[in-house]
Amino acid sequence: MDELKVDEEKGMEVIDGNGYLITPGFINSHTHVAMTVLRGFADDMPLWEWLTEKIWPLEEKLNSEDIYWSSLLGMIEMVRTGTTTFNDMYMFMDETAKAVEKIGMRACLSRGLQGFDKHSSKRLEENLDLFYQWHNQAEGRIRVFAGPHAIYTCEPVFWKHVLDMVDRTGMSIHTHLSETKTELDNCLREHGKTPVQLLNDLGVFKYPTIAAHGVHLTRDDIKILKNNNVNIVHNPGSNLKLGSGIAPIPELLKNGINVALGTDSAASNNNLDMLEEVRLASLIHKGMLEDSTVISAKEALDMATIAGAKTLNWENEIGVLDIGKKADLIMINIRESTFFPKYNTISNLVYSSYSSQVEFVMVNGKWIMKNGEILTIDEEEVYSNIERLKRKFI
Amino acid sequence: MDELKVDEEKGMEVIDGNGYLITPGFINSHTHVAMTVLRGFADDMPLWEWLTEKIWPLEEKLNSEDIYWSSLLGMIEMVRTGTTTFNDMYMFMDETAKAVEKIGMRACLSRGLQGFDKHSSKRLEENLDLFYQWHNQAEGRIRVFAGPHAIYTCEPVFWKHVLDMVDRTGMSIHTHLSETKTELDNCLREHGKTPVQLLNDLGVFKYPTIAAHGVHLTRDDIKILKNNNVNIVHNPGSNLKLGSGIAPIPELLKNGINVALGTDSAASNNNLDMLEEVRLASLIHKGMLEDSTVISAKEALDMATIAGAKTLNWENEIGVLDIGKKADLIMINIRESTFFPKYNTISNLVYSSYSSQVEFVMVNGKWIMKNGEILTIDEEEVYSNIERLKRKFI
Repeated sequence: MDELKVDEEKGMEVIDGNGYLITPGFINSHTHVAMTVLRGFADDMPLWEWLTEKIWPLEEKLNSEDIYWSSLLGMIEMVRTGTTTFNDMYMFMDETAKAVEKIGMRACLSRGLQGFDKHSSKRLEENLDLFYQWHNQAEGRIRVFAGPHAIYTCEPVFWKHVLDMVDRTGMSIHTHLSETKTELDNCLREHGKTPVQLLNDLGVFKYPTIAAHGVHLTRDDIKILKNNNVNIVHNPGSNLKLGSGIAPIPELLKNGINVALGTDSAASNNNLDMLEEVRLASLIHKGMLEDSTVISAKEALDMATIAGAKTLNWENEIGVLDIGKKADLIMINIRESTFFPKYNTISNLVYSSYSSQVEFVMVNGKWIMKNGEILTIDEEEVYSNIERLKRKFI
Repeated sequence: MDELKVDEEKGMEVIDGNGYLITPGFINSHTHVAMTVLRGFADDMPLWEWLTEKIWPLEEKLNSEDIYWSSLLGMIEMVRTGTTTFNDMYMFMDETAKAVEKIGMRACLSRGLQGFDKHSSKRLEENLDLFYQWHNQAEGRIRVFAGPHAIYTCEPVFWKHVLDMVDRTGMSIHTHLSETKTELDNCLREHGKTPVQLLNDLGVFKYPTIAAHGVHLTRDDIKILKNNNVNIVHNPGSNLKLGSGIAPIPELLKNGINVALGTDSAASNNNLDMLEEVRLASLIHKGMLEDSTVISAKEALDMATIAGAKTLNWENEIGVLDIGKKADLIMINIRESTFFPKYNTISNLVYSSYSSQVEFVMVNGKWIMKNGEILTIDEEEVYSNIERLKRKFI
């Protein structure tokens, strides 16, 4: 593309989009961006050993500075691969908020709430502080949600406290749900209910809920999710890599449930590339069900755009390119081999192209990346800080 | 990277590899490169309808010029994504051979042999001509194999003719095997045997055999494959997209069978990116078996390098970087976010990086790509020819 030009007469920037496909920015509906610093620290291990021997001990060492730089590292990757909005849950979320403000992305942030120990109320307080400090800040690019982690890390009474907070503030709820067979089995044993039934009985689903995973669901669970308009976030890469299983997405879609897409964290993915998730979502269910007609290219792409916007309760402003919506858009270079021949643009995008073909990214009407260069931060500074921080972990 | 420099004193090119990971070039052990012109023509359809209503009628229209340009389009993509060697089966293979000679890749070529109609012997003749004209040509970069298409397109008597040719020439055999449940079911009904048993009884496995797919295999099949040193080429992307199923790769590896990786064609993949196949191979079996320890990053990478070399009977020269081997190598830019932090290089390569980070490609000691620019062909000329050819198909 030629240089962007400013039309002096009209006082506006004129962009020659020849050779580019322009689409809504991708919406990553479930991630933990600051975990990017844990990428590649441990792989190919049994899930419990991975969590207890590798990830959790390392997380104990993370401080607020680590979270700031690691959040930026993950955001670099998201911007480079065409994501304009993400939904995040973790700790030291102030730092992630500062990073969002700086890089110029759009994000929904929640403090991850474990509710089973003496620090539980402190975390809840932090979530509330985050809300009062950051909700609707950064030109309206940041929203704050409640982040009760999961049924196996939050006791029923803690869920009640979370719902009180949600009721007072109008936050959405961002949680993990039915990710593994173990979670399902333990829940059935301890509560005599599935995780979905448990949350439903606790009254959680009366509030707007974003439930990541939904891998192990019964038919009754699916009815409950549908009847309560629960949004499911499919994380195919993470579910595969951790050996959690393959979520019954075609079944959920058939039942009219809104399904968005997420990367989960770079510790279990191991990147934050939504186009990769779109492709996985379009492929794995075809293979699993031995049916090449399930989850078309268009359906998979919708999960990463409009369905994500609905999930975040933000579809009045993002998820599609239209008059009156926010300008969150990406420009994809289609003069590379993956876009030849040009029979079907959506097929080329979903099945053959690379996120590295994303060259321009705009959020909220402002360019964050032009010609493959991120304008709002210094990438090299982030990389050198990450290598410095890494040394304390090994 | 700084410019490549020539050390005048020593008379050699000196390369500063700082910031790069150097690995053996990828080996794509099963593809039909000239089908790249059919990419995106039809997707998300039932397999039989896709083949009979879309792909086969289009293939009828292909002539030798189409094959030349389309082969080059596919090769651009392979070079750009780090593949240095590929194993191909199709028609008008003279044109593909010319394209290989021009671009500088390494390839094993076979004429796809359907053996059920009046053109069967002509195809066999073309395979033999290809052998005499191209085997060990282009500085030894081209080898010619026999390409009996599959048990459902070649009658038993035709397989005998193929084996006669193989016996005379010493070619390896490149075929499709047990790709779909339908193939298995029909074979059991018609022959009372599985496809593996049928080929074994025909004496095919006495010769070096490269069998693409192996999705639907019995325990007895796996024993036969092992006892006969049959090489299986796993094509995860294509098997998923066509709804063929998920091959029992962990089981094959446990039984000591050599498993390589392939993309299959861009009509069913829809690109020719081996790093994507490596990632799929490392992920889908973990998810399918709900076991995060199966197919480690290293095992998946080996399938795309050394196992591919063994499959093509070429492991004395390619598949690893070592003294005495051919210089088929790629240089991957590791100064991008996907390689931070650097805990584990193989994990970063397999689970988080992009094939677009491949910037230098050398085959047979000669640079084909430097700094992301292919040196041996004019990419724009290829794209404009592809768009011209496309018009006759729509």
